[in-house]
Amino acid sequence: MKHWREECAVFGAWGDPESSQMTYLGLYAQQHRGQESTGIVSLFEGQHITHKGLGLVGKVYKEDDLKRLKGDGSIGHVRYSTMGDNYLENAQPLTATLTYGPIAIAHNGNIINANALREELISDGAIFQGTNDTEVLLHLLARNPKGNFRESLKHSLSRLEGAFSIVILTSKGLVAARDPLGFRPLVLGRRSLDNGKKSIVVASETCAFDLIGAEYEREINPGEIYWVTDEGEGSELFSENPKKAQCIFEHVYFSRPDSVVFGKNVYETRKQMGRCLAKEASVNADLVIPVPDSGVPAAIGYSQESGLPFEFGIIRNHYVGRTFIQPSQSIRSFGVKVKLNPQAEVLKGKSVVVIDDSIVRGTTSKKIIQLIRNAGAKEIHFKVASPPTTGSCYYGVDTPRRKQLIASEKSLDGIREFIGADTLSYLSMDGMLEAVSGDKNKFCAACFDGEYPTKLYNK
Amino acid sequence: MKHWREECAVFGAWGDPESSQMTYLGLYAQQHRGQESTGIVSLFEGQHITHKGLGLVGKVYKEDDLKRLKGDGSIGHVRYSTMGDNYLENAQPLTATLTYGPIAIAHNGNIINANALREELISDGAIFQGTNDTEVLLHLLARNPKGNFRESLKHSLSRLEGAFSIVILTSKGLVAARDPLGFRPLVLGRRSLDNGKKSIVVASETCAFDLIGAEYEREINPGEIYWVTDEGEGSELFSENPKKAQCIFEHVYFSRPDSVVFGKNVYETRKQMGRCLAKEASVNADLVIPVPDSGVPAAIGYSQESGLPFEFGIIRNHYVGRTFIQPSQSIRSFGVKVKLNPQAEVLKGKSVVVIDDSIVRGTTSKKIIQLIRNAGAKEIHFKVASPPTTGSCYYGVDTPRRKQLIASEKSLDGIREFIGADTLSYLSMDGMLEAVSGDKNKFCAACFDGEYPTKLYNK
Amino acid sequence: MKHWREECAVFGAWGDPESSQMTYLGLYAQQHRGQESTGIVSLFEGQHITHKGLGLVGKVYKEDDLKRLKGDGSIGHVRYSTMGDNYLENAQPLTATLTYGPIAIAHNGNIINANALREELISDGAIFQGTNDTEVLLHLLARNPKGNFRESLKHSLSRLEGAFSIVILTSKGLVAARDPLGFRPLVLGRRSLDNGKKSIVVASETCAFDLIGAEYEREINPGEIYWVTDEGEGSELFSENPKKAQCIFEHVYFSRPDSVVFGKNVYETRKQMGRCLAKEASVNADLVIPVPDSGVPAAIGYSQESGLPFEFGIIRNHYVGRTFIQPSQSIRSFGVKVKLNPQAEVLKGKSVVVIDDSIVRGTTSKKIIQLIRNAGAKEIHFKVASPPTTGSCYYGVDTPRRKQLIASEKSLDGIREFIGADTLSYLSMDGMLEAVSGDKNKFCAACFDGEYPTKLYNK
Amino acid sequence: MKHWREECAVFGAWGDPESSQMTYLGLYAQQHRGQESTGIVSLFEGQHITHKGLGLVGKVYKEDDLKRLKGDGSIGHVRYSTMGDNYLENAQPLTATLTYGPIAIAHNGNIINANALREELISDGAIFQGTNDTEVLLHLLARNPKGNFRESLKHSLSRLEGAFSIVILTSKGLVAARDPLGFRPLVLGRRSLDNGKKSIVVASETCAFDLIGAEYEREINPGEIYWVTDEGEGSELFSENPKKAQCIFEHVYFSRPDSVVFGKNVYETRKQMGRCLAKEASVNADLVIPVPDSGVPAAIGYSQESGLPFEFGIIRNHYVGRTFIQPSQSIRSFGVKVKLNPQAEVLKGKSVVVIDDSIVRGTTSKKIIQLIRNAGAKEIHFKVASPPTTGSCYYGVDTPRRKQLIASEKSLDGIREFIGADTLSYLSMDGMLEAVSGDKNKFCAACFDGEYPTKLYNK
Repeated sequence: MKHWREECAVFGAWGDPESSQMTYLGLYAQQHRGQESTGIVSLFEGQHITHKGLGLVGKVYKEDDLKRLKGDGSIGHVRYSTMGDNYLENAQPLTATLTYGPIAIAHNGNIINANALREELISDGAIFQGTNDTEVLLHLLARNPKGNFRESLKHSLSRLEGAFSIVILTSKGLVAARDPLGFRPLVLGRRSLDNGKKSIVVASETCAFDLIGAEYEREINPGEIYWVTDEGEGSELFSENPKKAQCIFEHVYFSRPDSVVFGKNVYETRKQMGRCLAKEASVNADLVIPVPDSGVPAAIGYSQESGLPFEFGIIRNHYVGRTFIQPSQSIRSFGVKVKLNPQAEVLKGKSVVVIDDSIVRGTTSKKIIQLIRNAGAKEIHFKVASPPTTGSCYYGVDTPRRKQLIASEKSLDGIREFIGADTLSYLSMDGMLEAVSGDKNKFCAACFDGEYPTKLYNK
Repeated sequence: MKHWREECAVFGAWGDPESSQMTYLGLYAQQHRGQESTGIVSLFEGQHITHKGLGLVGKVYKEDDLKRLKGDGSIGHVRYSTMGDNYLENAQPLTATLTYGPIAIAHNGNIINANALREELISDGAIFQGTNDTEVLLHLLARNPKGNFRESLKHSLSRLEGAFSIVILTSKGLVAARDPLGFRPLVLGRRSLDNGKKSIVVASETCAFDLIGAEYEREINPGEIYWVTDEGEGSELFSENPKKAQCIFEHVYFSRPDSVVFGKNVYETRKQMGRCLAKEASVNADLVIPVPDSGVPAAIGYSQESGLPFEFGIIRNHYVGRTFIQPSQSIRSFGVKVKLNPQAEVLKGKSVVVIDDSIVRGTTSKKIIQLIRNAGAKEIHFKVASPPTTGSCYYGVDTPRRKQLIASEKSLDGIREFIGADTLSYLSMDGMLEAVSGDKNKFCAACFDGEYPTKLYNK
Repeated sequence: MKHWREECAVFGAWGDPESSQMTYLGLYAQQHRGQESTGIVSLFEGQHITHKGLGLVGKVYKEDDLKRLKGDGSIGHVRYSTMGDNYLENAQPLTATLTYGPIAIAHNGNIINANALREELISDGAIFQGTNDTEVLLHLLARNPKGNFRESLKHSLSRLEGAFSIVILTSKGLVAARDPLGFRPLVLGRRSLDNGKKSIVVASETCAFDLIGAEYEREINPGEIYWVTDEGEGSELFSENPKKAQCIFEHVYFSRPDSVVFGKNVYETRKQMGRCLAKEASVNADLVIPVPDSGVPAAIGYSQESGLPFEFGIIRNHYVGRTFIQPSQSIRSFGVKVKLNPQAEVLKGKSVVVIDDSIVRGTTSKKIIQLIRNAGAKEIHFKVASPPTTGSCYYGVDTPRRKQLIASEKSLDGIREFIGADTLSYLSMDGMLEAVSGDKNKFCAACFDGEYPTKLYNK
Repeated sequence: MKHWREECAVFGAWGDPESSQMTYLGLYAQQHRGQESTGIVSLFEGQHITHKGLGLVGKVYKEDDLKRLKGDGSIGHVRYSTMGDNYLENAQPLTATLTYGPIAIAHNGNIINANALREELISDGAIFQGTNDTEVLLHLLARNPKGNFRESLKHSLSRLEGAFSIVILTSKGLVAARDPLGFRPLVLGRRSLDNGKKSIVVASETCAFDLIGAEYEREINPGEIYWVTDEGEGSELFSENPKKAQCIFEHVYFSRPDSVVFGKNVYETRKQMGRCLAKEASVNADLVIPVPDSGVPAAIGYSQESGLPFEFGIIRNHYVGRTFIQPSQSIRSFGVKVKLNPQAEVLKGKSVVVIDDSIVRGTTSKKIIQLIRNAGAKEIHFKVASPPTTGSCYYGVDTPRRKQLIASEKSLDGIREFIGADTLSYLSMDGMLEAVSGDKNKFCAACFDGEYPTKLYNK
């Protein structure tokens, strides 16, 4: 694993006779946010219909499954598994039957006080079925029937700490909610139907709207509960907090470049990071190449700002699957070469600027640099379009432990030496914030600066 | 299907204790040349061991399969199926036991007189097991035992017309052969083993060598039979013809950009096609964008030659699988949008040069242009980095019928109007040949100019 | 479905290093009691390990699964599904983590007040995962921590009405319990291990003990809780009721003939039913044939008592699977003929006594009689080795509704006419009780006489 | 493996719009003759449609497969695999396209000169696809186009030695043929269709006719070729030989008891073997029990002749699958107990006659006797309803080597001692022949008396 991994995407559709189809497509477009399990729940005649499975969206759902998922409202989920929990019972949406009737929840984020809440609930007689932090919310809802569902939801959400962008399907409607600090994205849109009406759609990223031809309207705001039923729409804030903690790594790496996240197009913010990098850390060289695919936009930005020609000096093989049978004989830098093949014709005798989005452990960067050097590059200037990553994330991202992050253990020159570059530069925190046009108070950059926006619990 | 589709890749390894592992990796790297079935045959103690399956290389072989494929010599194959023949019995390598012992054949190309030969053989009592043209060669070999295998092979190959780049595994060694006109690529390399020796490898494309750390040595020449056994190597020409007919579409689209094909690096020839296009058909515009992924190198070349900035105005989703459940509701340009998402932030209000490698039917180009226009582009200058394709291929490529090729039916302006571009330009034949530094006598460009290098048979 | 169907079998082993293996074998031997899903839970180092699946025991468990199910204690379950609930989440043993630690429950029977308890629990905030009545017991245990587990269990069991033979695995030991009326069987045994010690085994039927070489010791008594831990064994009665309601249909049809059930060997009680039938309803005939397999012991008994020769006039095909593709053309009595083939050589011109264990709807009997007549039988005397079945069962058996039971709707002669026999006789209630040496107060025969031993709830 | 195993059954239907359905049912009824692979080929508009698979008939064919197998004529096959050849390419029917058009062959038997013919054909340029002896016939047909298919077939069959009961589907009709000595059964019948017409059916055993409601007409005679096309039926003898060699083991064990084989009902011949055994080897005892299922008819015959009561002292569990996970702890006679459970209540203190159809290695009989003794039997008189088996079969049966047959290595008393019986008797050769009303010249009993009816080849 080179990168930190986003753990989930959510999607919801309401008022669409093909709501499960749209959810399927919305998940398909967001597959990059989670590839290990997926599920869709639809609402038909007051009852929930569920389909879940392990694997990619394109494999888990057959045409008959989508036909079975009848109804005008649906929600769906894709997820990564963290260590040891890749079981179907953890696949979301989670479902239960409460006194209100059936309920289904899909969650992106991480509830950091889940363990304490779980213990409290178990000693009060609750039976948990999985190890998922989201299940805590189900039990809170089951035990707090405050007269109506929205009151119960507000009360239950107020018990949660951490990151949660949530879509809920009840027997009456669709609900979307986002934690008060707004860690993870959640967006609202509308889609024109063939019958002239408009349906409501909710997603983690706007690329899901593009695929189904929906219009992006706005973000679900931090601390907001939004709902839609056959009676209409509504919204209220369950928490007001002027501070926000939107995950800046969504712009650095997680989101698709064609999404609008926290109000900004990701391709443009990444290109801007490349431009800032060129301003902060210019160097004499013959050409600029990206580590594909994540380094591409920043490399284009760098090329435009610096005037150095942009080239694909490393070709990425997109047919590579998730598993691979290793040969027992030694093949140099084999693991990287399966995906990335440097080209001698482009690199030989050249002084090269190499752009990557981030460095995690440093081992992959080291191998890439070896490959580039073997292809004949004369000088290698490795430039990273974000600051050094020095801290783990507790808000819904699967990260290595702090000690495994090379930038938390080594100096800039120590990293440079380890990865074998001739020079190494990182983008500054100010440069990164400028690229997202960001106010520091609106973002969580804890993985870069250690300023965690919430209390932390022992994991 | 937007594109014509290469039908196969071959691979062979000899003198390597992990020959089947290397073949697996060699096929993995060449997966773009065929994704519907694959097979590997290894030679162990005079016997052949076979594993074949439908699907991708990464799925068909498990670790145990490769362990079972013991032996120092192996050959392998990946293939597309043409209409209606996606059966396991057509998966290659084809195998048989002849008086010489076991034989296995993997073939890239198309034998154009296969039907006539098949009828002749059936009326002489041969039993065919599949519909594959390659099986004809097996039967010719079975019926022509000329004292030794190489004589029999020369005699049998002389009966074949058309395109064939072939690797053969016998009970003694590995044989590679290429048809006299050299339609399809076939390259030879060597790999240093951990034990200090060198093994022989043969592949369709050099990218297979890169992955396993083998050195590219030379092409198997048109009309050449090359062999290697435990006794050593040898080579002879079974046909001498000064004319060659190397497929120029390998450079335009089929091959991986990081391969060296017919002696030239493909990324560089494609970039050169973009440069030539910029010289031949310059236009005033704000930026250059590729239709990803195949248009990328030419767009970079165009940008470099023209000075217009290069941008990714269309983002490609690489998580898209091969099948997709369509919604029944209308979603504009849905089929294209699954893969390609244009970005309003990049395109809005801009005059855009769009670079693609070729136009086949025109329907995909039309949808792409619609999407770009909907994203707000002011002007769209569509530029194709190869000449108009006007003819079908009979040499191992799955092509639409002539009438479905838009350039064989419409004028330049008719095509422009159909696809909805503001201007449309194609690269000239001379420009394309210049890009590959090519002598017209060395290439087959029949799909562009109708000059078929062999007699044609009714299909 | 000809017959009523037993819904489950349970098994438990304690103190055996191969406890999951023994549980696997114990379930294998009891496969006739449930074929739709199965599960095993083992206890290893204080944690539960679970494996469940849909289908037969021989398919669901692979060797690796049993290796994974480590530990000296295990419980297991096989079950039929009733309509519409063939989901893996209903497969037993059910598991949960309570304040006591992990708990697993396997249940044979039916809790008749489950719906009322479920509603009570849901309105108190419980979240149910399946539709299984057994889950109610889990929630009662979770909510009633009475200081120690056994107190909690006694309290929870006292809330249940109906039939339950239960095995429970906790983090400390194995528990077996049987409802106060003792509807379903539950037996205790010991097995000599290779190391000289003895392990404890619990099963629904003694045939499970025979397979693994365990000694049958006694029944778990109605109203008894039996437990074993590393500290030793113990037992207490949680309810004392002189009346019993042991299911007499276990002797008529459900149990394997080689089991000892409620203290009597089933093959012998069935043969005795045949003998009583011969005494009560003798007839002049040439031979006696069973409807195989369930009618065989009674037919042997009838033959011995009457002196008429016993023959297999109908051959049963044991290769028949559970599903079958029907031809659209009409084939007379096809559904029956798939399993049962009458033999003209045996039957032609003969007056035949046909023995079956029971008649449910009458449609199968009708087809069997047609087949026998077509095979040339001169006279058919159909004799049933149990009284007419006139009522549904609510204690763990999947039964047709009362109206579908032919004996609840038609007179004896009406039934005879419907099935097409020349004569028809049933065994009397007294005869059946005599065959099981039974005191009416010890048995439930509600399906025959309508005397339900508990209050009934609306289903 | 206790028993020798029949290797195949065949089926054919002609003139039936549901011919593939009938073939499916005909194979289903004959599943006992081969459980490892199956295939059906149908003829539709001059083309063959094929479906084959590994496993049971009920698993291999789905409803859609049978719908795809359109046409009024079909043939099918079930087979056992012999060691190491359980590959789909050996599954029958075998198919090829000859100058006559498509041909499919299903074969029961064994061609004993297949290896010599195969070598001859390979050196003449034939390419074999599998290791099946039947493929030899395909190549002979391909190479001998004698003007019309029937002439070619006669010529090709005349090259074969050994056992073959064959059904063939051409592009015109259905052909059935049986070797001149008539080793294996092959029967002809007719079925009344809903449209008033009659279809032709061919099968290995008549039980296949019973299931589909067809009338048994006659055997295909040894040396006969029978054919039916849209033009009508015909028959001719391609060889006339007064001697026959019908396999007597079909009556002893292979065939279903409800089949008519070589003109006699199998249940009756087996019962007669039991009667003869009682006459030849009477003994004082309390009861007679069969080793189920194969010993049941003979035990009934023995009981009727001797007057001793017939009991099921051993219960067979019919839920046992083909594979089984063994415990590592010792369980006495485990392998046998999985299937067979003796009953103490029946056996305790009794002197018991145990009837089995044959003894192969003796190891299973030994374990059965141990189990019976452990169940408390006082005396065990083991009686075998056929003579001692002393020789292997080369005519289509998978047999142990001669040395593994206990009767070829030990005296009667030596066998008795090995298996642990108090007394042991076999049926005499004369008794067995009397039971089948057989002339010794009409049967092959080589496995009993070593008189092989053909020349033998080294295997």
